[in-house]
Amino acid sequence: MNSMNRRIVLASRPGARASIDNFRMESVAIPAAGAGQVLVRHHFLSLDPYMRGRMSTAKSYAPPQPLDEVMIGGTVGEVVASGHPDYAVGDHVAGYGGWQEYALVEGAGLAMLQKVDTRHVPLSAYLGAVGMPGITAWYGLSMICEAKPGETVVVSAAAGAVGSVVGQLAKARGCRAVGIAGGPEKCDYVVNELGFDACVDYKAVSDESALAEAIAKVTPKGIDAYFENVGGPVFDAVLGQMNAFGRVAVCGMIAGYEGTPVPLKNPMVILRSRLKVQGFIVFENPQIVPWAQAELASAVASGRLKYRETIADGLENAPTAFLGLLYGKNLGKQLVRLL
Amino acid sequence: MNSMNRRIVLASRPGARASIDNFRMESVAIPAAGAGQVLVRHHFLSLDPYMRGRMSTAKSYAPPQPLDEVMIGGTVGEVVASGHPDYAVGDHVAGYGGWQEYALVEGAGLAMLQKVDTRHVPLSAYLGAVGMPGITAWYGLSMICEAKPGETVVVSAAAGAVGSVVGQLAKARGCRAVGIAGGPEKCDYVVNELGFDACVDYKAVSDESALAEAIAKVTPKGIDAYFENVGGPVFDAVLGQMNAFGRVAVCGMIAGYEGTPVPLKNPMVILRSRLKVQGFIVFENPQIVPWAQAELASAVASGRLKYRETIADGLENAPTAFLGLLYGKNLGKQLVRLL
Repeated sequence: MNSMNRRIVLASRPGARASIDNFRMESVAIPAAGAGQVLVRHHFLSLDPYMRGRMSTAKSYAPPQPLDEVMIGGTVGEVVASGHPDYAVGDHVAGYGGWQEYALVEGAGLAMLQKVDTRHVPLSAYLGAVGMPGITAWYGLSMICEAKPGETVVVSAAAGAVGSVVGQLAKARGCRAVGIAGGPEKCDYVVNELGFDACVDYKAVSDESALAEAIAKVTPKGIDAYFENVGGPVFDAVLGQMNAFGRVAVCGMIAGYEGTPVPLKNPMVILRSRLKVQGFIVFENPQIVPWAQAELASAVASGRLKYRETIADGLENAPTAFLGLLYGKNLGKQLVRLL
Repeated sequence: MNSMNRRIVLASRPGARASIDNFRMESVAIPAAGAGQVLVRHHFLSLDPYMRGRMSTAKSYAPPQPLDEVMIGGTVGEVVASGHPDYAVGDHVAGYGGWQEYALVEGAGLAMLQKVDTRHVPLSAYLGAVGMPGITAWYGLSMICEAKPGETVVVSAAAGAVGSVVGQLAKARGCRAVGIAGGPEKCDYVVNELGFDACVDYKAVSDESALAEAIAKVTPKGIDAYFENVGGPVFDAVLGQMNAFGRVAVCGMIAGYEGTPVPLKNPMVILRSRLKVQGFIVFENPQIVPWAQAELASAVASGRLKYRETIADGLENAPTAFLGLLYGKNLGKQLVRLL
C-alpha cells in the first residue's frame, strides 16, 4: 500500500466557464484510523453536474465548496483500516469521500457511510443506477411526475445517469417513455439498449420549432410528465406539448450551470395547461431512500435496469472528465476509477 | 318592461390588441320563458381578464368564444319570468348569462344558475369577493399556496378583484400579506383599506433590480407563497426572493394576454429554491365552491372582508371597460351595471 493520499482541491472559483485551472492536485500522507474512525480506500469517484454549483459562490441550496479543501463527491470503496465496531476491513462502502484516493471517516460523516452489498450489484452501481442518480430518478418520477400507466413521460439528458433510469422506470410502470439526448449515438443507446419508445436528438434539429415538432411527432397523445435535467430551449419545447394537469420535475438545468441564460420563453403554458412545475433535491428526501434503493438494486441485479458507465482512469483525470460532463461528453454515469 | 334585449357579440377576433371594433351591439326581442325555462334580467355583468383569452383562437384551456354570439360572462340578476318549479319571479340569481340585458336559461345552463341570498351580501358581490374571483383567491391561497400562519404571502394585481381577497384571506390566516400593484392610489387602498402589511408600487421603480429590491425590503423573512396574476418582470422579481420550498399559484398572466411576451428570465430558481409552481383554473375545482363561498360570504357579511367595485354604467360601455381592465384601469372588481 502506497503511503501517500492524492487528492484534488478547489484552487479557485470559475469565471464564466470552469476550467482545469480551478483544481489543484495535492499529495498528503494517508491518515491512520484511530478509535471511532474508518479509513476507506476509494475505488470509484462519482462526477455529477451539481458539483458545478458548489464551485461558485452564487446563491444555491447548499453552501459553496470551500477553497483549498478536497472537492466534495460521492465515492465507493473498501474499508482498509477500522477503529469502529460497525465497520470491518474489507467492507464495501458508499459515501461522500470526495476527490481523493483515501478518506478518513468519523463522527457525523459515518452517517453517510453506507455498507453496500456487492454480491449481485457491482460496487460502482452504488454511484449510479442504485445510488444518488438512480434515487433521484426514482423520486422525481414517483413523487413529482406521479407517472401513471398509459401516460407519456419525457426526460431530457436521457442517456445520462439520471435520465436513463427515469425512462426505464417509466417503462416498468406502463408509461410511454420518450428521451431527449444529444447525438445519434446517445439516441440509439436510449432506444435500442435502454428500451425507451423513442428519443429525439436535439442536435439534429435546426431550431426550436423543429425541436417542438420532433417532440410532438413521438408524443402523439401529448406529454403528461416531464423530468427536466437541462433547461433552456428544450424546456420550452417540451412544455408547449404538455397535456392539461401535466407534472414537471425540475431536477437540473445543466444548460445554465456555466452561466448561459436559460430563460423560459413561454411560462404562460403553466397557466394554460394547469401544470405543476416543481424543483427538488434528492438529498432532502431521505425517507424514500430505503425503498427506492431496494427497487433499483433488485432491478439492476435481475438485469431489468440497464446502465452504462463512462470511466476516466486515475484521479488526475477527474477535472477533465468533470468538464466534459458539463457539455454532455459522457454516456451514462461518469466515473473516475481510482484503483 | 322594455321589449328589447340588448346584447354584445364578438364581431371579430383581435389582432395584436383587442379593440372596441371587436364587439358589436345588437338588439333582439326579449324571449318568453316556456316550460323548464327561466328568464333573468341582469343587474350586473362581470368583466374578467380570462375573457381576453376566449376572444382569440390561440390554444387555451377553453374553446374560443364563437364569433357573432353573445360574449360569455358572469352575471347577477333577478328572475322575471319562470317556467321552472325551482325558480320564482323575484329570485336573485348568479350565472353566466353573458354580455346582455336578459338571458333565457334552460337545460344544462340551469346547473350554473345559482340562487343567492342577498339579505347580508349585496347581489354584486356574487360576481366579486363572494363569486368567482373570491373563490379563485380562496382556492389558490388554500390549495396551492398552502399558506400557513407566520408565512409571508405576496400577491400581484393586489388591488384587483382576486388579489384583494388573497391578501385579506392571508391576513386572516396569520400570514404577512404583501401586495404588488400599479400606482400610489392602488397601493394606498391595499394597505390602508384592505389591511395588507405592505404594497410595492411596481410603476414607481426604475427597473427590475429596483423592483426586486423594493420587494425584498418589505419581505424581510423572504417569501413563502406567491399568488401570480400578472406575469413578466414582476414574476421574475418575486421568484428571486422566494424561500426554499415556496409555493407559487399561477392564476393569471395578464401582462401577456395581449401578446406581449412574458418570459421567465431565471427559471433556475425553481430548482435552486425547490419551488412548486402550479397553474390552476378555479372552474375545474367545483368541489371547493360551497365551503369557500360560505367563508367568503360570512366574511363579507360581517365586514371583515372588504372590496371595492369599479362600475361602468350601461351595456354599451362594457367593451371600453373591458379594455381598461386589461391595462389595470380598474380598482377592485370591474362591473357593468345594467339596471
